[in-house]
Amino acid sequence: MTKHSDLKKVAGGGLLDRRTFVKKGLVFSVAVFNAESLNATTESSRSTWMEMPGESFSNYGQPSEHEREVIRWTMANSMAAGNGVSWTPLHKMEGTITPNGLHFERHHNGVPKIDPKKHQLLIHGAVNHPLVFDMEALLRYPMTSRLTFIECGGNSNAGWRDKPIQTVAGYFHGMASCSEWTGIPLSLLLNEAQLKGPAKWIIAEGADASMMNISLPLEKAMDDCLLAIYQNGERIRPENGYPLRLIVPGWEGVVNIKWLRRLHLTNRPSMTRNETAKYTELLPSGKARQFSFVMEAKSIITHPSYGQKLDGSGVYQISGLAWSGRGKIIKVEVSADGGDTWAEAELQEPVLSKCFTRFRMPWSWEGQAAILKSRAIDETGYIQPERQTLITERGKHGYFHYNAIVSWGVSEQGEMAHVYHG
Amino acid sequence: MTKHSDLKKVAGGGLLDRRTFVKKGLVFSVAVFNAESLNATTESSRSTWMEMPGESFSNYGQPSEHEREVIRWTMANSMAAGNGVSWTPLHKMEGTITPNGLHFERHHNGVPKIDPKKHQLLIHGAVNHPLVFDMEALLRYPMTSRLTFIECGGNSNAGWRDKPIQTVAGYFHGMASCSEWTGIPLSLLLNEAQLKGPAKWIIAEGADASMMNISLPLEKAMDDCLLAIYQNGERIRPENGYPLRLIVPGWEGVVNIKWLRRLHLTNRPSMTRNETAKYTELLPSGKARQFSFVMEAKSIITHPSYGQKLDGSGVYQISGLAWSGRGKIIKVEVSADGGDTWAEAELQEPVLSKCFTRFRMPWSWEGQAAILKSRAIDETGYIQPERQTLITERGKHGYFHYNAIVSWGVSEQGEMAHVYHG
Repeated sequence: MTKHSDLKKVAGGGLLDRRTFVKKGLVFSVAVFNAESLNATTESSRSTWMEMPGESFSNYGQPSEHEREVIRWTMANSMAAGNGVSWTPLHKMEGTITPNGLHFERHHNGVPKIDPKKHQLLIHGAVNHPLVFDMEALLRYPMTSRLTFIECGGNSNAGWRDKPIQTVAGYFHGMASCSEWTGIPLSLLLNEAQLKGPAKWIIAEGADASMMNISLPLEKAMDDCLLAIYQNGERIRPENGYPLRLIVPGWEGVVNIKWLRRLHLTNRPSMTRNETAKYTELLPSGKARQFSFVMEAKSIITHPSYGQKLDGSGVYQISGLAWSGRGKIIKVEVSADGGDTWAEAELQEPVLSKCFTRFRMPWSWEGQAAILKSRAIDETGYIQPERQTLITERGKHGYFHYNAIVSWGVSEQGEMAHVYHG
Repeated sequence: MTKHSDLKKVAGGGLLDRRTFVKKGLVFSVAVFNAESLNATTESSRSTWMEMPGESFSNYGQPSEHEREVIRWTMANSMAAGNGVSWTPLHKMEGTITPNGLHFERHHNGVPKIDPKKHQLLIHGAVNHPLVFDMEALLRYPMTSRLTFIECGGNSNAGWRDKPIQTVAGYFHGMASCSEWTGIPLSLLLNEAQLKGPAKWIIAEGADASMMNISLPLEKAMDDCLLAIYQNGERIRPENGYPLRLIVPGWEGVVNIKWLRRLHLTNRPSMTRNETAKYTELLPSGKARQFSFVMEAKSIITHPSYGQKLDGSGVYQISGLAWSGRGKIIKVEVSADGGDTWAEAELQEPVLSKCFTRFRMPWSWEGQAAILKSRAIDETGYIQPERQTLITERGKHGYFHYNAIVSWGVSEQGEMAHVYHG
């Protein structure tokens, strides 16, 4: 049996070797009581729900009524119907998959109620064979699946504020979700339409009332984009693009056009509202960064995080999510002393490209004030920057693509706060 | 551009090389029309849902009203409340993840409505430190995640019937589902309780009205079992064991005790009803096979399958699921000529141990009658058997653990039937 005091520290603030929990015989002895009177315990704990038959079968299951707080928090613009966002409650979740009911939403004019029998996809412009597909036709095509995240370009934008926002991780960083998407490789249909010489960009358009559209470089379209029909095994939910969504792995959410109805091949981008007035970043030089599609490496500790409370000193598991739009996460480092020292976290297998990666780290907390941080490193060697570094490079008026290290302050009472530190 | 007639066949009945769809320029030209009058098409297809703002945000999303048929089909025993099953609609799904609302159910006395604040787990018997945990305590423990399937030992048992059942794949094989489960390694809590010498088995008991219980060998418990709290990122659904489920990767569903309340360490199995009267297999010798925990390798073609219809000759993608309780699937072979010749299917990456694996195979169907089969091979070298082989070995009265190759007959009209063949 291993005592807590015997545990080897690998960095400041009580961080333990990431393999600590695999060792045999580590005893937590926290919030557990020994069962001295076993008969009393087993009998008294026979609860009312064991005294009568339970509920019947259901055709489509729902969460427990005791989990009513695990929902998407929404923020809608009262001046424009269906304009706003809803966040995935990352601080209430574990693992890497986002269940479909909790996938974040960003709508510009609400969720269209599309009849799939009437929905069509048009591919036209610089192609030899303009084509129209209905859903029945698309379902005949070969498909592939991949687990990938979608993150809104505006996710975490509260990080640009002068004072650290005090809110739960999901309400701060929850415009990011991860699903298994299944659909037709976009390249396959583009080949069928036969591209003409001038084709360099695709204008993708959705069938919502805002006719949401964006410009996508042809190179990416031919690389790994999907015309997705299924999300986590079932047909895509209405709010995520039913019946057809363009999936652009690793790129900002806005280009993953929902309710996809049209792909127009052109020789240049369309300069739509959402790639000029919005989804661009004003730099310190006064110029704006445009077509900054890729979501750079990012990580966030979800447990413990703001709104949670450490329940006395002892060994805790720090747990969080990391992802990169450029490929695989190769390392996540965690600090418990505000970035003075770092130690490598355990990554949950399988680690997949452009996918949420769960990291975990054992931590012995002895009641001291602490600052917890995580930083992600992806396969290109990119290291998630400290906040000051990001601001020096990009200024404070970028609004989009905020991916700085997040710092959670821990008080001696175990209370958590969002702090700016480095 | 590749014409269909140029496609290289790799086996009888029109099976194509599994990489066919990756080739540039394969044209399907099925159920697609060329857009000769583009203006007319783009304008006329502006549907009513583009003329008005859409629906608002939702705290917890639901499937489209147009997908109401994608549900769990249920079969309950009218003589015993809450006794029965519901099936995952595999024939309506793609990819490998089962969304939580569609995970199959097998209940013996219904779904208990458990208050998680009152739920406890007791570990006792041959241990030095009997322990009781509440959910708050368990949430303090380190967790790990894995994607794994659960399959009822009684899945596919219609295969034992003398005549092939004519029903959809989900209603035949859908007592199998696959999720990302997150929880505490069982070995960790057993170590904390300190096992005594006689501990060789664990009797695991659920908090439903039937006090469902089974015996689990200690070796498996210490290997890869989880005390799961989360399923696909959110807390486990009531019908899947909320708030705590024992996950026994690769072993028959019945041992994955839902609503887990008790782990009793003993020196021998308990010989409960569900490991003596049920979940055993009567062999031709008259003896019964007991403790046949592992679900052997299996595969099923879901597209095309019974209830679907081929829409004219052309290239199709055959798609299905394979899994093994012993580890990874290393190969799935498909036959389009009733097993005379076989060709290797593409496996969707990542291929994970004890997890659903999606396989896909291109097939050029020219209107001939055909018999489609798939067979899974796992990393132990085990090959999914033909039906006659299984019956010769196990007899026809086993009821449980049916994993023979499934044959779908295709008529010249493209209609699908379940057939026995081999």
